[in-house]
Amino acid sequence: MEVEVKFRVDFEEMRKRIEGVGASFLREEVQEDVYFSVPLPELLRVRRIFNLGRAFLTHKLIADPGRNEEFDELEVEVSDFDTTVEILKRLGYEEDVVVRKRRLVYRLGDVTFELSEVEGLGGFLDIEVISDDVGKAKRVIWEVAEKLGLTEKDVEPRLYQELIREKMKGRA
Amino acid sequence: MEVEVKFRVDFEEMRKRIEGVGASFLREEVQEDVYFSVPLPELLRVRRIFNLGRAFLTHKLIADPGRNEEFDELEVEVSDFDTTVEILKRLGYEEDVVVRKRRLVYRLGDVTFELSEVEGLGGFLDIEVISDDVGKAKRVIWEVAEKLGLTEKDVEPRLYQELIREKMKGRA
Repeated sequence: MEVEVKFRVDFEEMRKRIEGVGASFLREEVQEDVYFSVPLPELLRVRRIFNLGRAFLTHKLIADPGRNEEFDELEVEVSDFDTTVEILKRLGYEEDVVVRKRRLVYRLGDVTFELSEVEGLGGFLDIEVISDDVGKAKRVIWEVAEKLGLTEKDVEPRLYQELIREKMKGRA
Repeated sequence: MEVEVKFRVDFEEMRKRIEGVGASFLREEVQEDVYFSVPLPELLRVRRIFNLGRAFLTHKLIADPGRNEEFDELEVEVSDFDTTVEILKRLGYEEDVVVRKRRLVYRLGDVTFELSEVEGLGGFLDIEVISDDVGKAKRVIWEVAEKLGLTEKDVEPRLYQELIREKMKGRA
């Protein structure tokens, strides 16, 4: 199980704090995520990581819909982003939402930090632990979250694609 | 467009003939194809090539249903066979038919020869040309087919998964 909590943050400030707690910088990713029209609690996504020249097909099953902190995830790397998108369209799925972000990935022990600047939405930090012990994973996540000065009020329970969709509606 | 004609052949005899016309041997593939339940003229397949440690996700649209010689194909390599199968199952597709074969791939000019020993079905030769000029592609295919001693009566118009399905019904 992928357990993660998403927080709204100031990107530059949080970057300093993450480096301040001793996390190791792993990589930068410039991502474009295409989400397809499958009903929640399922997510179907093709991700392109421009700067690394890689692409991934991902299916997530949200284990705690609404809170969106527990995901049963299946992912494969694919050799071509556009062709994968085209295959899904041919199967009848429609492009729902596109999420673009710049992401810095850090690691501290079993914890992964994904610090993102999301186009149109601002800064976010996903703190993630892969574990089948959800309770323990959440304790570990909140332990480091507190060290970073984050509290319950900083939590953003909505998915990126929900935030983008709401933003698009607001504009219309 | 992928244009191909499938013939029923004797594997060993045809191997000698293909080598006799000067085709270059490219590779041997030990394949397992899982076809999923999409309605014709669409095909949805995940292929594992055991001996090369590779896997592919493929969608084909049959442009000439019934004859099955013209395919509009989209294919990506995937990093993991089992996970890809699992993603499709999660999306609601059912495993329809599994086709296992040993295949020798040869090439002569623009023509690809796929000589296969299909588990439970016997020997087959697919002669393939990638071209948007279907008429020309067929002429090229039949030119080499004749050199190999093949005629219209050797043609097998049914798809491998149709042949497997018919065989399974016969047994039931």
